Amino acid sequence: MKDNSLCDLGFIGLGVMGSNLVLNLADNGYKVACFDLDKPKIAAIESIDREQRGNAKPRVFGCDSFTTLLSSLKVPHLLMLSVPAGDAVDNACEHLISAGIKANDIVIDTGNSLWTDTQQREQKYKSHFIFFSTAVSGGEVGARFGPSLMPSGDPYAWTRIEDMFKAIAAKVDANTGKPIERTQPYKPVTEGEPCAAYIGASGSGHYVKMVHNGIEYGDMQLICESYHILREGLKLEPEAIADIFEQWNNGLLDSYLMEISIEVLRHKDTETGKPLVDVILDSAGQKGTGLWTAISALEFGSPAQSIAQAVFARSMSSFKTQRTIASKLLQGPEVATYTQAEKGKMIDELRDALYCSKVCVYAQGFQLMLIASKEKAWDLNFAAIAKIWRAGCIIRAVFLEDINRAFKENENLENLLLNPFFNQQIVRLQSNWRKSIANAALMGIPHPAMSSALAYYDSYRCEVLPANLLQAQRDFFGAHTFSRVDKPSQKKFHVEWASQSREMKAL
Amino acid sequence: MKDNSLCDLGFIGLGVMGSNLVLNLADNGYKVACFDLDKPKIAAIESIDREQRGNAKPRVFGCDSFTTLLSSLKVPHLLMLSVPAGDAVDNACEHLISAGIKANDIVIDTGNSLWTDTQQREQKYKSHFIFFSTAVSGGEVGARFGPSLMPSGDPYAWTRIEDMFKAIAAKVDANTGKPIERTQPYKPVTEGEPCAAYIGASGSGHYVKMVHNGIEYGDMQLICESYHILREGLKLEPEAIADIFEQWNNGLLDSYLMEISIEVLRHKDTETGKPLVDVILDSAGQKGTGLWTAISALEFGSPAQSIAQAVFARSMSSFKTQRTIASKLLQGPEVATYTQAEKGKMIDELRDALYCSKVCVYAQGFQLMLIASKEKAWDLNFAAIAKIWRAGCIIRAVFLEDINRAFKENENLENLLLNPFFNQQIVRLQSNWRKSIANAALMGIPHPAMSSALAYYDSYRCEVLPANLLQAQRDFFGAHTFSRVDKPSQKKFHVEWASQSREMKAL
Repeated sequence: MKDNSLCDLGFIGLGVMGSNLVLNLADNGYKVACFDLDKPKIAAIESIDREQRGNAKPRVFGCDSFTTLLSSLKVPHLLMLSVPAGDAVDNACEHLISAGIKANDIVIDTGNSLWTDTQQREQKYKSHFIFFSTAVSGGEVGARFGPSLMPSGDPYAWTRIEDMFKAIAAKVDANTGKPIERTQPYKPVTEGEPCAAYIGASGSGHYVKMVHNGIEYGDMQLICESYHILREGLKLEPEAIADIFEQWNNGLLDSYLMEISIEVLRHKDTETGKPLVDVILDSAGQKGTGLWTAISALEFGSPAQSIAQAVFARSMSSFKTQRTIASKLLQGPEVATYTQAEKGKMIDELRDALYCSKVCVYAQGFQLMLIASKEKAWDLNFAAIAKIWRAGCIIRAVFLEDINRAFKENENLENLLLNPFFNQQIVRLQSNWRKSIANAALMGIPHPAMSSALAYYDSYRCEVLPANLLQAQRDFFGAHTFSRVDKPSQKKFHVEWASQSREMKAL
Repeated sequence: MKDNSLCDLGFIGLGVMGSNLVLNLADNGYKVACFDLDKPKIAAIESIDREQRGNAKPRVFGCDSFTTLLSSLKVPHLLMLSVPAGDAVDNACEHLISAGIKANDIVIDTGNSLWTDTQQREQKYKSHFIFFSTAVSGGEVGARFGPSLMPSGDPYAWTRIEDMFKAIAAKVDANTGKPIERTQPYKPVTEGEPCAAYIGASGSGHYVKMVHNGIEYGDMQLICESYHILREGLKLEPEAIADIFEQWNNGLLDSYLMEISIEVLRHKDTETGKPLVDVILDSAGQKGTGLWTAISALEFGSPAQSIAQAVFARSMSSFKTQRTIASKLLQGPEVATYTQAEKGKMIDELRDALYCSKVCVYAQGFQLMLIASKEKAWDLNFAAIAKIWRAGCIIRAVFLEDINRAFKENENLENLLLNPFFNQQIVRLQSNWRKSIANAALMGIPHPAMSSALAYYDSYRCEVLPANLLQAQRDFFGAHTFSRVDKPSQKKFHVEWASQSREMKAL
């Protein structure tokens, strides 16, 4: 601490995300006291700050202990953590307690914690300080220049940090619904609608971020399946696929994930000169949030099948050795070749399939949040959530503007598919969607997220599902009983199945 | 206790499953002391026993307390619990401890406990008695006349109970692979191969049973989807569908679940005279084991997507009110009509689709058990597991004989799809499988388990999945790094993505 005026907040954890958040805060005029167990990181962040702002006006100040950190701050203290989810969060909290943190102080966890851990921590630390949390979306660029922030916890804490959060968050042009980009170095964007909104009680912000990531898994998987169909089904090269994606990106499918996919597909490997995508091992990792979303959907009984499929697709990708063996043993269908005209038609069909499937993935994510919100009494505001996802985060897209509008039109909307805009789009495009999926099945190209999205749509619009037969089967072998369509559903019935009772009685 | 010779075992919990197990044990000559908190159940089981065997040779003896129960048994004591999964198991154990159970006594949990609870209980009670468990499959008829038993825990305990388990289990004809039915009342089947095999260390039996139920969910869902396609796509009546299922049941698809589906579809509601299936509410319940299987598959990273789809299909069925609204708002494709010849072709295609999808569901289940077995060092014997599922349990079918053979031919088989028999079947039938799925997509009939089974097949036989694009996307926005196909996979690479670093450097 070389400056003698006190800092606005203390920051613990100077990894990629933490350092970028610190610089973002500094750009916005906040003085930040920093601590990390790894001392060189402290020196590094100070030197970046001096380089950017000159030695005369530093805004970032390294501290060598938790005690120094606390004594460098204005009272009541405000602290942010950017440490790995899990024990590291509790370790930092314990250190702060030892260093003398007070009951009115606020500690904000900015990591990727599991939402139920966050809920437990709020209780665990409430006699020592206010444990607050915010989910941060947007990767390192987001953290540096404007993330999407999903804060939750004590509403009083929010009143103390709201201005700071709105300052550092990404901004959206209210007219176009698009992110506002920075134009000058070290000058944050100050106009526009900030991508930060108070989500609700403790844990809700991380829950919403978890579902955001689940949707992101689904969205990415859909783009990958489209790429796969174009690549293996239509035998197109990455450059040609980038061109197609570029066209799509000018329409309904305009999104950050499409943009980066285009850039990826155009990227050449410097070592081999090949398209980079061809030298990357097709074995995908995961950070857990997609997995958690799928598990939460199963537990809440919310059908989020395409998100689960995206998680399973990543698992399947990790069986590279087995797949290589299987590729030699398991035959596929005969390979067809297509004329230019046929290909053109199939590309258009696929575009519409991608869009319709994407609507279903988002419908699944919002349905899950609605069920969680009811179950946990969070009273989530879905229009606001869609709004703060328009910039700063990975799934940012004009599409979120449509979702925002859907929930503004009807805040009790039970499913995005019931919104007239999305409904009309799907009615208009469904024939292509179906053809594309049918073709992929015939061609032998896996498209699990896309086909499960169609199953979601077709099941949701199905007045009578074959669960009636299922209930009869269950009553048959397990006497599980069933409800009748012509009686109140709480009344349960059981049939004396002929062969079952014959067996039971005769022997 | 009205008889003065001591009983072979004590039985706690006389619900449907418990009572039937007790009568099964008695049929096999065991003397059983019984206890239930609900006294009339004790009287009821005694009276059934007297009715069946006459007052002179009773084998079932009611007890009015845990203490009486213990004192009625031969030493060392053997006890079985049939109480609801959860706290009731621990309550019974605590009562037994109070009643003076000894360290060398065995308590066998026969309920549907979560496998991790079973593992914890073995540790928790080991200073008091040997906590052993067995999963029991087959519903009430199975429990009464021969269930499939999946015991696991202390190997020494197994040596003490093996004969009893094999006596009460279902039996299979070694030549045909089919269940041997009882022919005389109160006379258990004594010849044939018993459906009881020691599975492995504590928890493994319940884990295997859990996956059995997950497979059962998938299998049932596939039958329901086939029914749905025939009913809504081909406009066939339940009776006609039963006829089709009956034909299928004579071939590769021969199974208990098909048999009961046929009986269900022929069943008329006595009240309305309609096919019963039409008066049953299409909202399916679940007992948790399918859900647990899907969650375990997600956690182990084992692609069991069709089982997860079956769970989500049940969730979706429970949104009856929303589906009814949606059915009026969300349009489907135009309805086609088919000639008799077309229908005949589609029925054949569907039969093959059902079979191929079923192979994939079982492949997913066995893959999951293999991964769990490696992770937990259970050393599961898959040939033996397939063998004990041939009779007594819900998924019993000749099909299990083929699976048994697959693992006998190669005990290290990594996936059922790699077995030559299943491989050849799918190669032979895949064209119909694909056509059937393509048609269902075009017709607008949801078929989530079937299409995810195809995706499983097509992904598994895919040497290069689009996870390479996914890894590039992840490296782009989150610097997650990737491996290269031409370098050792532990070596990680990161690209300085042009637009990403432009942003990071310029601003």
